[in-house]
Amino acid sequence: MRIICNKSELQKNVNIAAKAVALKSPVYILEGIRIEAKNNLVTLYGSDGTLSIKCINNANIIEEGDVVLPARLFCELLAKFEECDLSIYTEGSNVVLECGHSKTTLCYMSAEQYPAFPLFDAVDGITLYSKQLVSMIDQTAFATSASEEKPILTGLLMELGGISFKMVALDGYRLAIRKETLMSEQEEKEVVVPSKSMREVARIIPEDETTIKIYIRENMVSIVCDNVEIVTRVLQGDYVKYKNILPNEFMTRAIVSRQSLYSSLERASIMARQSKTNLVNLEIDGGNMTITSDSEVGKAREEVDIKLTGKNLSIAFNARYLLDVLKEVVDEEIVLDFNTNISPCVIHPVSGEGYLYLVLPVKTSHS
Amino acid sequence: MRIICNKSELQKNVNIAAKAVALKSPVYILEGIRIEAKNNLVTLYGSDGTLSIKCINNANIIEEGDVVLPARLFCELLAKFEECDLSIYTEGSNVVLECGHSKTTLCYMSAEQYPAFPLFDAVDGITLYSKQLVSMIDQTAFATSASEEKPILTGLLMELGGISFKMVALDGYRLAIRKETLMSEQEEKEVVVPSKSMREVARIIPEDETTIKIYIRENMVSIVCDNVEIVTRVLQGDYVKYKNILPNEFMTRAIVSRQSLYSSLERASIMARQSKTNLVNLEIDGGNMTITSDSEVGKAREEVDIKLTGKNLSIAFNARYLLDVLKEVVDEEIVLDFNTNISPCVIHPVSGEGYLYLVLPVKTSHS
Repeated sequence: MRIICNKSELQKNVNIAAKAVALKSPVYILEGIRIEAKNNLVTLYGSDGTLSIKCINNANIIEEGDVVLPARLFCELLAKFEECDLSIYTEGSNVVLECGHSKTTLCYMSAEQYPAFPLFDAVDGITLYSKQLVSMIDQTAFATSASEEKPILTGLLMELGGISFKMVALDGYRLAIRKETLMSEQEEKEVVVPSKSMREVARIIPEDETTIKIYIRENMVSIVCDNVEIVTRVLQGDYVKYKNILPNEFMTRAIVSRQSLYSSLERASIMARQSKTNLVNLEIDGGNMTITSDSEVGKAREEVDIKLTGKNLSIAFNARYLLDVLKEVVDEEIVLDFNTNISPCVIHPVSGEGYLYLVLPVKTSHS
Repeated sequence: MRIICNKSELQKNVNIAAKAVALKSPVYILEGIRIEAKNNLVTLYGSDGTLSIKCINNANIIEEGDVVLPARLFCELLAKFEECDLSIYTEGSNVVLECGHSKTTLCYMSAEQYPAFPLFDAVDGITLYSKQLVSMIDQTAFATSASEEKPILTGLLMELGGISFKMVALDGYRLAIRKETLMSEQEEKEVVVPSKSMREVARIIPEDETTIKIYIRENMVSIVCDNVEIVTRVLQGDYVKYKNILPNEFMTRAIVSRQSLYSSLERASIMARQSKTNLVNLEIDGGNMTITSDSEVGKAREEVDIKLTGKNLSIAFNARYLLDVLKEVVDEEIVLDFNTNISPCVIHPVSGEGYLYLVLPVKTSHS
């Protein structure tokens, strides 16, 4: 193999492919990035068995070849090279990286043992702006379960049907649903993808109006964005029938400024965190919501203006479950819908049906 | 106690005082910040027994008082309060922080048990720009010993005499000397201060032309910068007679661009780090320095242009000991003076005698 390519472009693409590579793996080749120079194209591959990434990189190919280099070391080296046209060539059992007066030699591994990139037909894809997918992931992934007790809850449900594309996460205490409207009708489909894979996707694709394609198959989901293809395997098992959990009506509705509520909860949560329960109390009374928290070292009391419809209410929550969602909502005003102090609270922006978050209250001695 | 003060100013000063406070201490009051409101002044104190910091803060004092609040929690709360005139007052065994619709109550401790701030006479001080002291600390502190085996080597030697003010660090493998010229003659004095204290000083005082005063006493060093007083105790024991270590002549002198040498060493050190020795070889031959490193996974070879005086030489170093100093030198061109491949190398900028760094080579099988 002998190729010449722009150092910065290669660095960018190697860093993308490396996101699918495990830092440490019992199988050494899985710590590597595959570089394939063939048919006038250089393709970079990274994979950990669950997530696979493929990047096309421009290069002048003098001699074709196919090698695997240790990912971490390769990234580190590229970060330290100055901007240049980097020569990469094999020499015996080594790959040489040469740039100006710098010459680094790395043992390479044979590409034969490297996991094959999953094949998929690029047909029947759904089209989105990449920023739409990033927002769908950001607004749901935090609500997936961190525990492997019920593996299916560590995943994000992707639900397709008609012109609706939904992403759903739940962990037993809260539920996040994010919906986008598509340009064209789609068949009904449901898959659950690892939340970890989707978080990597959100880090890789740009938060702008780049058009991306998503291909949802029974056993994998593929995302194509410019020169990058990302494929993740899906989780097996039945997802929770979450629609049954959503209440149809409410007794109390509070409309509140997202920023005010977030700041007040942040302060109250500092005290809440001092006790193990991490509890904040919300006291809704007329046009006012009083947030209190209590611990051995001190207590907090915050007041937030609200627009109230319905009955007054006193209810308690784990502070983190409220902060998590308020951090991700972008709207200025949000709605909090309640029934009783032992039934779920539903949070959504004032405008639009694109986002919905449900959180269970904590039962206290007063509940 | 009852005071009203600007939230941002208080936050800034509390964060400064907190730098002297231990995150965890077996004596709970040492995790606290003392707030003293007296004679129309609010003074904040932090101390861990070695380092003590005192900050004057503007405030409207309605009622005098003296309390200790848990430092970490106090900092966290102030960070989350919005910009406001913050009311702070005692209420029973609590201190209340009140700002708009936010009210936080914290248990306070009695200031009686808090360590007294060390007294010193503000006479015979030396005057510097604060950026000069920051640079003296930055260019030496990294060369102090991290091991407590010889406690005196964890400190920085401050050496005063005539119009010269020196800061010296050494750890058995390398030596850094940084000199400033003073405006006025000083008595001869020598103290060793904990490097940890001086690193905090470098983080607190601004890197600009603020005039600061340094008072060197037998048992403490005090630094005064605007509204902040920092006092550190000194380390007991005799410092190494470092002047004997400095070679008087050299056989090989290489003048080199700091940036080129730094970049090349950074790349070579990635490979060097793969083997435990972290070794880089320098081959000086005419107008050229070849830097090589070697490990099981690969090797690096870098070439740097030099201006050579004297003999060719091949010598090996721990890569980190070279990178550490090159990161801190600000000059564009530096001088490396050598004798043999088993005697120390002296590094200093081309111009000026303000900075000098000595590093021992590593003996290899070729030495």
